[in-house]
Amino acid sequence: MSEKTTKELEKLREHIDSVDQQLLHLLRKRLDLVAQVGGVKHAAGVPIYAPQREASMLAKRREEAAKMNVSPQLIEDILRRLMRESYLNEKDVGFKQVKTDLGHVVIVGGQGKLGGLFAQMLSLSGYQVKSLDKDDWQQAEAIFDGAGMVIVTVPISITCELIRDKLTSLPSSCILADLTSIKEKPLDAMLSSHRGPVVGLHPMFGPDVGSLAKQVVVVCHGRGREQYEWLLEQIGIWGARLVEADAQQHDKAMQLVQAMRHFSSFVYGLNLYREAADIDNLLQFSSPIYRLELAMVGRLFAQSPELYADIIFAQQESLTAIGDYLDNYAQALELLKRGDRQGFIREFEAVAAWFGDFAPQFQRESRAMLQSVNDMKTG
Amino acid sequence: MSEKTTKELEKLREHIDSVDQQLLHLLRKRLDLVAQVGGVKHAAGVPIYAPQREASMLAKRREEAAKMNVSPQLIEDILRRLMRESYLNEKDVGFKQVKTDLGHVVIVGGQGKLGGLFAQMLSLSGYQVKSLDKDDWQQAEAIFDGAGMVIVTVPISITCELIRDKLTSLPSSCILADLTSIKEKPLDAMLSSHRGPVVGLHPMFGPDVGSLAKQVVVVCHGRGREQYEWLLEQIGIWGARLVEADAQQHDKAMQLVQAMRHFSSFVYGLNLYREAADIDNLLQFSSPIYRLELAMVGRLFAQSPELYADIIFAQQESLTAIGDYLDNYAQALELLKRGDRQGFIREFEAVAAWFGDFAPQFQRESRAMLQSVNDMKTG
Repeated sequence: MSEKTTKELEKLREHIDSVDQQLLHLLRKRLDLVAQVGGVKHAAGVPIYAPQREASMLAKRREEAAKMNVSPQLIEDILRRLMRESYLNEKDVGFKQVKTDLGHVVIVGGQGKLGGLFAQMLSLSGYQVKSLDKDDWQQAEAIFDGAGMVIVTVPISITCELIRDKLTSLPSSCILADLTSIKEKPLDAMLSSHRGPVVGLHPMFGPDVGSLAKQVVVVCHGRGREQYEWLLEQIGIWGARLVEADAQQHDKAMQLVQAMRHFSSFVYGLNLYREAADIDNLLQFSSPIYRLELAMVGRLFAQSPELYADIIFAQQESLTAIGDYLDNYAQALELLKRGDRQGFIREFEAVAAWFGDFAPQFQRESRAMLQSVNDMKTG
Repeated sequence: MSEKTTKELEKLREHIDSVDQQLLHLLRKRLDLVAQVGGVKHAAGVPIYAPQREASMLAKRREEAAKMNVSPQLIEDILRRLMRESYLNEKDVGFKQVKTDLGHVVIVGGQGKLGGLFAQMLSLSGYQVKSLDKDDWQQAEAIFDGAGMVIVTVPISITCELIRDKLTSLPSSCILADLTSIKEKPLDAMLSSHRGPVVGLHPMFGPDVGSLAKQVVVVCHGRGREQYEWLLEQIGIWGARLVEADAQQHDKAMQLVQAMRHFSSFVYGLNLYREAADIDNLLQFSSPIYRLELAMVGRLFAQSPELYADIIFAQQESLTAIGDYLDNYAQALELLKRGDRQGFIREFEAVAAWFGDFAPQFQRESRAMLQSVNDMKTG
């Protein structure tokens, strides 16, 4: 580079530095203002996540951006990222307590990650929370005494047994809830062990989400809804979206959404291991899409094997879904072995037709994701 | 909401509106400044993507952010998003032309998507580009006359045959290159059909990337490197990172990275179709991670079946990788059928150990991606 070029670049970069300083100040200011909005909402007990307000604000900004020749998608992406930050900060303010005369909450399995998250959210909303873990059963009576709600969140494999063995003498005013990722059997166990209000919940997210904003919690009603309605409202105030479902339907969907998907990711990792693949080398050659897929498989193996065993072994019926996949894979492999290109294309087209408008929608969505992945690259 | 609350919120939102106006102005200003940097770089022929400068700038901003109690990750994410925008805008300025006495470029398959992208990038860099597609072979002699470079980018299934049949009499000063996603056979075909310089390229990205910044192009050297060195420099100026590879090694990696992965995504879609899954219902229950995975499968079916057939059927050896996956799946399914939870956990731990530090790294990476996915949710 010539000296002139270097100088020109330096001068421009100084300008950019100063713009970035102003940018930082604006971000700080905006975060403060949104925190004030949070404070007002908190006092009034209004949910932090307001989809309509968000959509109309974004539409307005996109319009303003277009007029200034700034890409509407750019300002939308930046504002969405800022909103995430604000949701994370909501926790510092705490949340409105919907039910003020509950008594305390007992979380059975409160030392687990998901139990810990719910304990934190409840505490931030003014509830008194006690944890009951596997070494605490001798003090169980004292811990349960005066509880207004008991939430069960222990490994799936012991959930029903624990409910049937240990939770048979809660007072009938006490709410019994669980956070298990299957719903039919735990709900049955709760209904038969407890006389009072019962509700099954399935938080559709990992315990490492910083905020519940926009996350989904599935609700399977048990008994005495009017007595736990406040809990649903409370979860809404945390920002989550509640999806009501029939327990059996939920469990059927989970066979595909969880058990089969986790299983096939597991096998994918197993396969890489057995092929003695060189991950460094694979990454070297990886397009953003493959890097993303490798990351989605690899993340599994950073987590607890027991957790995945629990999910995969939870439903006998998952075996069918998992077995069907094997059959379909074997059949498709036959096409390949025969070199039947036309047969492959026919099957592909049938699936594409079945996906319908979802296919292009998923393509748009994944393009945005892949761009984010590419943004993260460092060198 | 009380009237007081409504009023307070309205006032705060007016403040936020005005901050956002300032934000838009700053974004416009920053984009303009970076465009000026691009102009200076363009004139000097410096690559647009400068990883080290980028890293040191981000480090400085993170530090400044921390001092102002703004999350360092927030400013980094926003600046990365802004950089993407600037890279996209680079195209408006055009690129420095490294080789000014080349003669024109012929792209065989220039009407294809990837051919079109390369035609565009070359034109933006001042080269004269002619396209030669399947109906143009009668005028081939005229089109090739005076060409300094011929780039082949036609379906894999006809690439080698086309090279051997049609590209045997190019002048020995002409560079012959290809963009096929396998490299050994096309490279052999080019080397045996053409006397002059030969290079195999594999752009590791789809034709829908807006910019080549940070994208990877694999280079397999053929013959006469000093004569096509300028092309590699040119691709670097477009922002891409060049990865040199042995053709055979590259192809082996592609069996896992492309053929097997695409095949198992194909089967996953096929399986959903055969199970008559209700996509709406699945999405209803979907956590961000599953939505992402469903999107990655669905995107496949929005694309051309021929393209995927080409990739999957390209290498006979891919059959082995694809078959091995089936065997591993079948074995793992046996664990499940036996209810062998301990066996599953043992296998899981072996794979986790093999992933080593990559597993937590992938978990961190995917967490960031999943947060982006969640940011995109609209209601």
